[in-house]
Amino acid sequence: MTQQATVQAGQKTVNGVNVDELFGTIDAVKTAPVIATFKFRAENQWMDGGHNRTTIKNFYGTKQEHERKKPFVLDADEPPILLGTDKGPNPVEYALTALAACVTTAIVYHAAAKGITIHSMESRLEGDIDLQGFLGIREDMPRGYKEIRMFVNIDADAPMEKLEEIINLGPTYSPVYDTITRAVPVKVQLDR
Amino acid sequence: MTQQATVQAGQKTVNGVNVDELFGTIDAVKTAPVIATFKFRAENQWMDGGHNRTTIKNFYGTKQEHERKKPFVLDADEPPILLGTDKGPNPVEYALTALAACVTTAIVYHAAAKGITIHSMESRLEGDIDLQGFLGIREDMPRGYKEIRMFVNIDADAPMEKLEEIINLGPTYSPVYDTITRAVPVKVQLDR
Repeated sequence: MTQQATVQAGQKTVNGVNVDELFGTIDAVKTAPVIATFKFRAENQWMDGGHNRTTIKNFYGTKQEHERKKPFVLDADEPPILLGTDKGPNPVEYALTALAACVTTAIVYHAAAKGITIHSMESRLEGDIDLQGFLGIREDMPRGYKEIRMFVNIDADAPMEKLEEIINLGPTYSPVYDTITRAVPVKVQLDR
Repeated sequence: MTQQATVQAGQKTVNGVNVDELFGTIDAVKTAPVIATFKFRAENQWMDGGHNRTTIKNFYGTKQEHERKKPFVLDADEPPILLGTDKGPNPVEYALTALAACVTTAIVYHAAAKGITIHSMESRLEGDIDLQGFLGIREDMPRGYKEIRMFVNIDADAPMEKLEEIINLGPTYSPVYDTITRAVPVKVQLDR
């Protein structure tokens, strides 16, 4: 994001994002990059079978701990066809949720920084998985998504030929898009 | 998973997973691999600012469409420090949720196939992000997670030295673990 963005004078909020605060944040980070170091956290408790529950409460950033007054509680389960009881979306559906939300927010924030008003935006996502991987039937089959496709419908104050550019702010800046398309190291270990 | 697993005769359910059905599924997939082809889906609607809403309803698998009677609705938002209104977990917290849930379920299902009873399991996750990437301040900074750590506390019918092996079923079989640690192609495009 650059401050050359064409935000109208006196127009503090674009797409529901306070752009004065956004540029203020960018300036603050440029002055003291350490405030951009964040640690996000989750806690999970296994309930039974495919049912488990994640609690999201606190995170670290801007050199301090932040805690929500009330934690967010998210149930995951598998549908009956995958031997669960359907008490929540399944884990790979949560992954699509993370991606959808992140690409959307990246578009909204970066469009706001450029002074581009978005009137509405919806998207639909589809991801391909062959469960021979998870079931351990074929070692050469990836356990996870082979490919994910996201189709975005957007109404913005921009000419038709600019829409593609606006959509592309998502893949360019979205942390979850990056986390999925890049190989990110994950360490799983016993809590001793 | 192999059928050499030491499931006790007549014991149909281990860890809340019906192992007869599980082995039945594996046999069915071995006979007709096409039933293991799944497509998972999500729909997202932007609300305002960092707030957007994902709906999870249907998926394709076992050669047919499956639809939940009632969709799952998941709100994502950013906390105030990230210019949002905290109406839900943020996208990168949803990514941790997906990972936690998936590694947990992979452990539970594969332990069940091996006839290993798990009494309880909890985990905590932490992931590092430098927001200089998302903000576009440093081009050389990844937008997403640099690293994610998951610490698992498990009580299972297995000797202490076997617990590490049981935990490792997660990274070995979890689709979301694979999706994050491998570079998965994601296509984002205008819905025409």
